[in-house]
Amino acid sequence: MDILEHIMMRRSIRSYLDIEVEEEKITQLLQASMAAPTACNNQPWEFIVVNDKEILNKLRNKLTFGKYNAPLAIVVCGNMELAKGGYENYWVQDCSAAMENILLAASGLGLGSIWIGVYPLPSVIKPVREVLNIPEYVIPLGIAYVGYTDENKEPRTQYNEKRVYNQQYATTRKHRARPKNLKHL
Amino acid sequence: MDILEHIMMRRSIRSYLDIEVEEEKITQLLQASMAAPTACNNQPWEFIVVNDKEILNKLRNKLTFGKYNAPLAIVVCGNMELAKGGYENYWVQDCSAAMENILLAASGLGLGSIWIGVYPLPSVIKPVREVLNIPEYVIPLGIAYVGYTDENKEPRTQYNEKRVYNQQYATTRKHRARPKNLKHL
Repeated sequence: MDILEHIMMRRSIRSYLDIEVEEEKITQLLQASMAAPTACNNQPWEFIVVNDKEILNKLRNKLTFGKYNAPLAIVVCGNMELAKGGYENYWVQDCSAAMENILLAASGLGLGSIWIGVYPLPSVIKPVREVLNIPEYVIPLGIAYVGYTDENKEPRTQYNEKRVYNQQYATTRKHRARPKNLKHL
Repeated sequence: MDILEHIMMRRSIRSYLDIEVEEEKITQLLQASMAAPTACNNQPWEFIVVNDKEILNKLRNKLTFGKYNAPLAIVVCGNMELAKGGYENYWVQDCSAAMENILLAASGLGLGSIWIGVYPLPSVIKPVREVLNIPEYVIPLGIAYVGYTDENKEPRTQYNEKRVYNQQYATTRKHRARPKNLKHL
């Protein structure tokens, strides 16, 4: 199967079989993740691999939108000590690319996955910090739940040609206000 | 070749052959991009496909860190009208996953690519807006330059086991200050 098929095959999986993910596959997921591009190759990321059932349950119980029964969680974090000096502008993008690589690699390894958003909501960041003992200078971006899937989802693209512009943006709506918090951009 | 190999093969390409990227491949890149996950499947993205040489040159001339000779640029944007109501917290992550999918799909299609960062620097956003006629409520996140490559780079992972923690974060440096702009997290 080629990479385009895998990209279409990656669907958010919310039900998993009670089978552990092999250590070798966990390492492959992390290798894929750290092969992502980062601004000036800064690599501001850190990863917490959680497959201890007790800690996973603690984590799940704290997450309103992350109660799925995956046997493995990989928490993708940005380390602000690594992302200093301008790179703090890019850690979210860098870690998002790393996260997407985990999800796609999972598909390639016969696994399902789902991206649980953590950053930028303090109400989600705080409990993840507490359960996983994450220090102040490290920020959890999101959690990849991974495991053997217990649901079948068809591959799909959500291609929508209305979202594509040719050569330049074209609109009759140029004068809509931009959100207040983005006035400077 | 499997998806893990493609993930490792994706390297930032800075020199391209003078060969156009076929329309069919451009569509495949966009299909791959729009197959990325987004928060609650909000899909806040829009794409500007630029392969007109004059517009590409204008764009290149304005970009200090984007002067490479790719024959195709896909500008990944977040539309703040689409990302309203809470989703404005996630558009950067959503569009970053879409961007990473373009880069990986390019590798699968025999193409090279590089991610040119635009957001969040006003000094880069502004000229991109001007050249491509992007309205205020749409923010260019980054540009994927894509083309047939004129340089050979070996596949690699940058796997670093020091960045991986088992079950919980472990550190003796818990009390480092977090950056002032992140005090609330």
